[in-house]
Amino acid sequence: MAKHTEGMLHAEGMLHAYAVIMAGGGGTRLWPLSRQSRPKQMLTLIEERSLFQIAVQRLQALLPPERILVVTSQQQAAELKTHAPELPAENYILEPQPRGTAAAIGLAAAALGARDPQAVMIVLTADHYIGNEAGFHRYLEAAVALAQTGPLVTLGIQPTFAATQYGYIQMGESLGEFGGFVAHKVKRFKEKPNEDEAQAMIAAGDHAWNSGMFIWTIERIMQEFAQQMPDLHATLHKVAAAINTPDYAGVIEHEWPRIAAQTIDYGVMEHAANVAVIPAKELAWNDVGSWTSLFEVLPADTNGNLGLHPHHHDLDSRNSLVHGASNAAERLIVTVGVKDLVVVDTGDVLLICSRERAQDVRKVIEALKEKGLQRYL
Amino acid sequence: MAKHTEGMLHAEGMLHAYAVIMAGGGGTRLWPLSRQSRPKQMLTLIEERSLFQIAVQRLQALLPPERILVVTSQQQAAELKTHAPELPAENYILEPQPRGTAAAIGLAAAALGARDPQAVMIVLTADHYIGNEAGFHRYLEAAVALAQTGPLVTLGIQPTFAATQYGYIQMGESLGEFGGFVAHKVKRFKEKPNEDEAQAMIAAGDHAWNSGMFIWTIERIMQEFAQQMPDLHATLHKVAAAINTPDYAGVIEHEWPRIAAQTIDYGVMEHAANVAVIPAKELAWNDVGSWTSLFEVLPADTNGNLGLHPHHHDLDSRNSLVHGASNAAERLIVTVGVKDLVVVDTGDVLLICSRERAQDVRKVIEALKEKGLQRYL
Repeated sequence: MAKHTEGMLHAEGMLHAYAVIMAGGGGTRLWPLSRQSRPKQMLTLIEERSLFQIAVQRLQALLPPERILVVTSQQQAAELKTHAPELPAENYILEPQPRGTAAAIGLAAAALGARDPQAVMIVLTADHYIGNEAGFHRYLEAAVALAQTGPLVTLGIQPTFAATQYGYIQMGESLGEFGGFVAHKVKRFKEKPNEDEAQAMIAAGDHAWNSGMFIWTIERIMQEFAQQMPDLHATLHKVAAAINTPDYAGVIEHEWPRIAAQTIDYGVMEHAANVAVIPAKELAWNDVGSWTSLFEVLPADTNGNLGLHPHHHDLDSRNSLVHGASNAAERLIVTVGVKDLVVVDTGDVLLICSRERAQDVRKVIEALKEKGLQRYL
Repeated sequence: MAKHTEGMLHAEGMLHAYAVIMAGGGGTRLWPLSRQSRPKQMLTLIEERSLFQIAVQRLQALLPPERILVVTSQQQAAELKTHAPELPAENYILEPQPRGTAAAIGLAAAALGARDPQAVMIVLTADHYIGNEAGFHRYLEAAVALAQTGPLVTLGIQPTFAATQYGYIQMGESLGEFGGFVAHKVKRFKEKPNEDEAQAMIAAGDHAWNSGMFIWTIERIMQEFAQQMPDLHATLHKVAAAINTPDYAGVIEHEWPRIAAQTIDYGVMEHAANVAVIPAKELAWNDVGSWTSLFEVLPADTNGNLGLHPHHHDLDSRNSLVHGASNAAERLIVTVGVKDLVVVDTGDVLLICSRERAQDVRKVIEALKEKGLQRYL
């Protein structure tokens, strides 16, 4: 693919940059469309591409496919490969079991370190939406340049409202400009706030949303693992030593179940000494974390409706989303005079949810588990 | 069935009373559950009995099965017979084609006249709900007594609100008491009113709803047909002459298509000279004419919800009806925080309708016809 030759890529500073797309999640917040066996990143909600495909393809102008890696589970890898056949098969890094984001990132870091000791690793998610791809590229270039000066870098998101569904990052002193953007020292990571706390952080003006996108050199992240998560670091050391040997499969199968699951936020970021944040503006970033968030991402008709079903007849509805499974194309969905409603029909499950209650789908999932109805999850 | 012996029936005056249940309708107001091939009277909405079964069984304490007749179409008869096997097969009077209520009633009158020239005919509908069955029996006994004195009698319904979905009957002078109820001369039949007209009629206090229940002697209704609908009367005469002869099937097949369709209201009642009405109170009558009307008929839970699906999980919904087809029992329906909603899932069609817009289902049906989607009707 000629357009991916190095000569066309933006900056000399990107020559050692690698994207690592975290695609192991089993999120259920878009239930019943997302399932344990069909997580959010595999869903085709936008432009007939899966969120994972979109995550891969939005890197096209920034990185060649050889420098885009995916960390996922053995169960999900086969399907994900069909979504992004342009990536080399060896770029899919497989976890035998999920052990939290720290271990997943560590495994990718071990793989990258074996390929390129000078690698700068861009940790991305497979299931988020980013409307402004050109802006996204410029922020990543800035973050890579900053990471090469030493800090662990996180891309924050300039808040647009007092969200309670995201973690926040409090920004400290300026570290100067990188690629045209001002970077800050990270003062503190904060858990998802309540409504009042969120309002206070927005009013203070010195907080960004924690997007889960991180940029650092392999050298630096391995130092942090060694210092903060020595058990994981020791495991990664064994795995790294087996890379490109016949022992690799046996080593990882033996070691992985023994890892204590931990997030990168808690395991590394919150206690790391030198952490920087670049607050990104106008990325049109959205974590697609609930059915409501699709209203922000997808174009609605003049009545505010999102019709995602091939066979939908409406009379006078407003601000409602109707999603019917494509395998139920002969099924007719009729809506009459409904408002602010989310309708998701997957064949075996029909969800009808008030738009403002979309976050409570997780409560339904808990209740179904308690009822022994796992087959619907 | 011993309990139907004449000795147990209420009144001597009922010895020549016959019920004729009109069961030929193809109403679509409970679409998508009611269909052209599965009209409202066949639906099982209440107590696991079809509306037709309920209409037959509510007469049990009043009339023996031999004196309960059903007028329906050849297409519907087979299924209706399975709903009410207690009725003699010859009590199903079949129309080759529907030709309006005047012809259907005329056909039943011809059949009854051949059996019992002194018959009093109680015309009832197959698809209405009546909560107070004992009261209903007393009103019918009164109406039969009144009919035997000469007038065409209609059972009116004392209005409980300014309904716009019913026709009205303006009541004139009192005709005295029959069976403990005051009867009135009918002053005028009125079409379905608009909101203002309905309010005015309620305020005036001299109007009843037209329930479509009529009581008259065979002699009197045949006189009216002869006078007001001579073509129909001539046809009925030919059909009656063929009853209990081998010619019957041929005669009715030949004559019926030639009848001009007409309602009994327009064809007879509106211009008859001697018409009486008994305004019935506290019958808990409901024509089950829309999904909304089910809220009046069926018991709701403490949140006002009617759950008619075997596999429904709800979180915090209010005043909503969820009906899932029983053949979709494995399908899970989940509602979260919805209000005043009607959800009807038949497998091939899913209707989601604001409760206050349930009357507009007919607009949807018109639109689907225009789109060539008859297969859903």
